[in-house]
Amino acid sequence: MTGPLERLRDDLGDLVDTSPTSLEAARADRSGHRSAGRPLAVVHSHTVDDVQRTMRIATATGTPVVIRGAGTGLAGAANAGPGEIVLSTASMTGILEVRPDDLVAVVEPGILNADLNTHLAQHGLWWAPDPASRDISTVGGNIATGAGGLLCAKYGVVRDAVLGVDLVLADGRMLHLGHRTVKGVTGLDLTSLVIGSEGRLGVVVGATLKLRRLTEGVACTITAAFPAVRDAAAGSAAVTAAGVQPAIMELMDAASLAAVHDLLRLPAPAEGTAQLTIQTDGPAARDEAARIVALLEAAGGAVAVTDDPVEGARLLQVRRSMHPAMAALGTTLIEDVAVPRSAMVAMFDEIARIERQYGVRIPTVAHAGDGNLHPNFIFDGDDVPAHIWAAADDLFRTAIRLGGTLTGEHGIGMLKSRWLAEELGEDQWQLQRDIVRVFDPLGILNPGKVFDDA
Amino acid sequence: MTGPLERLRDDLGDLVDTSPTSLEAARADRSGHRSAGRPLAVVHSHTVDDVQRTMRIATATGTPVVIRGAGTGLAGAANAGPGEIVLSTASMTGILEVRPDDLVAVVEPGILNADLNTHLAQHGLWWAPDPASRDISTVGGNIATGAGGLLCAKYGVVRDAVLGVDLVLADGRMLHLGHRTVKGVTGLDLTSLVIGSEGRLGVVVGATLKLRRLTEGVACTITAAFPAVRDAAAGSAAVTAAGVQPAIMELMDAASLAAVHDLLRLPAPAEGTAQLTIQTDGPAARDEAARIVALLEAAGGAVAVTDDPVEGARLLQVRRSMHPAMAALGTTLIEDVAVPRSAMVAMFDEIARIERQYGVRIPTVAHAGDGNLHPNFIFDGDDVPAHIWAAADDLFRTAIRLGGTLTGEHGIGMLKSRWLAEELGEDQWQLQRDIVRVFDPLGILNPGKVFDDA
Repeated sequence: MTGPLERLRDDLGDLVDTSPTSLEAARADRSGHRSAGRPLAVVHSHTVDDVQRTMRIATATGTPVVIRGAGTGLAGAANAGPGEIVLSTASMTGILEVRPDDLVAVVEPGILNADLNTHLAQHGLWWAPDPASRDISTVGGNIATGAGGLLCAKYGVVRDAVLGVDLVLADGRMLHLGHRTVKGVTGLDLTSLVIGSEGRLGVVVGATLKLRRLTEGVACTITAAFPAVRDAAAGSAAVTAAGVQPAIMELMDAASLAAVHDLLRLPAPAEGTAQLTIQTDGPAARDEAARIVALLEAAGGAVAVTDDPVEGARLLQVRRSMHPAMAALGTTLIEDVAVPRSAMVAMFDEIARIERQYGVRIPTVAHAGDGNLHPNFIFDGDDVPAHIWAAADDLFRTAIRLGGTLTGEHGIGMLKSRWLAEELGEDQWQLQRDIVRVFDPLGILNPGKVFDDA
Repeated sequence: MTGPLERLRDDLGDLVDTSPTSLEAARADRSGHRSAGRPLAVVHSHTVDDVQRTMRIATATGTPVVIRGAGTGLAGAANAGPGEIVLSTASMTGILEVRPDDLVAVVEPGILNADLNTHLAQHGLWWAPDPASRDISTVGGNIATGAGGLLCAKYGVVRDAVLGVDLVLADGRMLHLGHRTVKGVTGLDLTSLVIGSEGRLGVVVGATLKLRRLTEGVACTITAAFPAVRDAAAGSAAVTAAGVQPAIMELMDAASLAAVHDLLRLPAPAEGTAQLTIQTDGPAARDEAARIVALLEAAGGAVAVTDDPVEGARLLQVRRSMHPAMAALGTTLIEDVAVPRSAMVAMFDEIARIERQYGVRIPTVAHAGDGNLHPNFIFDGDDVPAHIWAAADDLFRTAIRLGGTLTGEHGIGMLKSRWLAEELGEDQWQLQRDIVRVFDPLGILNPGKVFDDA
């Protein structure tokens, strides 16, 4: 029997890339982790037919396939290793349809989130999910991970913004899941099942997206400095409890804020200062900003507010500079736990305990409006040291104990698969694995990811 | 071996009900359809343990189980027949937890939607899904059908308002699906899979609900009368296209409006008059109402607007009286197609064609904000006559052809199972069936419903 690589070359010709640079790049995403070695080949699919041909060859030869978009994931789900075919959808960047009257767009998976939104803006529309990676991550990748972002407390995550997906199965068959209508309950909701499935169920080759009109009018941006992170967390909880709905509510702890100020050459904040950055928009933007200012001042914050868009963008830039600021400190393991909003203060107390207990620095930012924290474990060198894993293990178990979850928006990938059964329970873990087998009986789609079952 | 009924009585005692009245009632929901005969018994579960015991006996004896809440479904999904156990969760009405700070409630499945919201209102909270049946339907039933309602264009459907469900499997094991956090992407999204699964995957014994703060301030109610239904549909499309977001946007065609006016003893509308009833709420309620009035007047509507809550409720009462008005005309087959909003005018033209072609009256109302139409096929007698089914068949195929779906919010049940494969495609239909088998290997949960596979 001919091997998979020869078959791919026979069938797909120049789309099959075995250059060392491409193979090496496909070993890693942005999680700081890489696979054990180079994969077999990268197939640069341009059409649905290319994807189907690749999957038929993979099925015929029993070869594992790792689906890859822009490779910006933070959990290692798209890292490809020895013996694996990398199926890249990064070249499938078409916008097939935009329907302003139906608030719907149909797109290919490889289009970048930001490019899509630049195009949609011409129609006065946007697709709401805004992961921090939006300038460099694909819509297909956003769907595969069930991505979130800064705006999602008010405007929802990917799961709220996808009506349907076209999915190529492991054996090459194509399914059209979901609807073009905003409502629809025919049969099981396989669209939601595919969102966040991290390449285990099939290849997303198209998506019908639910759009919004661009929000009109002024946006108000508020910053509030607090003497300690738990005060800032209490301030954000007060905003949520009051029923005000900011578009953005970001929290930076003292270590994060200091690192970003250093990077941006801003004056150093007072020792221990943590900060909330909040934006309100829509018809009630000014009223909501005024209420938030009063709440945060009552909570002990030093508050500033602006409705100037340039100044607002400058204030948000502090938060958006978190990743480069962390990179300047060392190697980073970016985590992603979420807890009920009322448990935010307790979670920050626990992070402080874990820092002391394991002798680790964990600068942390949070999407405070929805209880999603990104603790950044800082260390030296390429490999995550054992004491960092021990601290991360403690962090995950703590989040689950506080009623939370392992991952709010990054996914499980290869980084967190060992904790998955702890959160799901053994019965549910096994049931989920059995559902994967319905889609992929041979187990060739992204084996080992999410379920640690390679 | 002892039979299922004897085992149920041994294990569950007085919870097992075989009174003719109860058995007879369990044959039908509100779809106008009933099963071929009486089921074996009704088990009135009061606790999760009761549910687990029942399912263990069902599995041990291979006995089919139909899960039932209040029996208000419109697709026959909860209709139970000969040889089947009815597992009622109607007595499990507890509100286990309300967390205003986290905007979360944990409830048992039997609580009525309206009772829950009465309780939540004391905390300034509400659960947004508002099916027309909300006074008489259970939260568990709302989850099983993936219910919608009048408010869902702005505030979402059940799928947008459930964070987690506790599910008892066919074999009696209990799974905790989902999260308490607003974000979470650990593993496959089984919560979404269970929502709308119509009793095929397991018994929902608990739900963690995502709440909203009660909307503050004034609500404005607008009515607009149009000379013909396609003008009213075009008016609603103009509102959507302009990017205004009403809380409610209901359309009544001429036959519906005339029937309700007759029922409520209001003056008869002019021949052919169709009507939009629209409500705006939130901080921009007045501005949005003013924009909508201008749009509808430009579209040829005769428009009235009020911000008086009593008058607003009176105007909405016209729409809410649709079901009794239909009942006064004859027996009704209530349908539930959805189409892209831009196809609403075309769908009304097609309904007029189907009325002529099959000699049927089909008064139709629509949740115009999301393209969900409820055509009411009127006939005499208990059984749906062949020409009504032929007309309904034409209607379903037409909706699918226009980019729409068989059911926006009622579900498939036993009424629409024969059209399901047409919408899903054979491959997806089979895959969905295989997923059901993962949850229920013996096929004892609601067999024949949705997938017509009894």
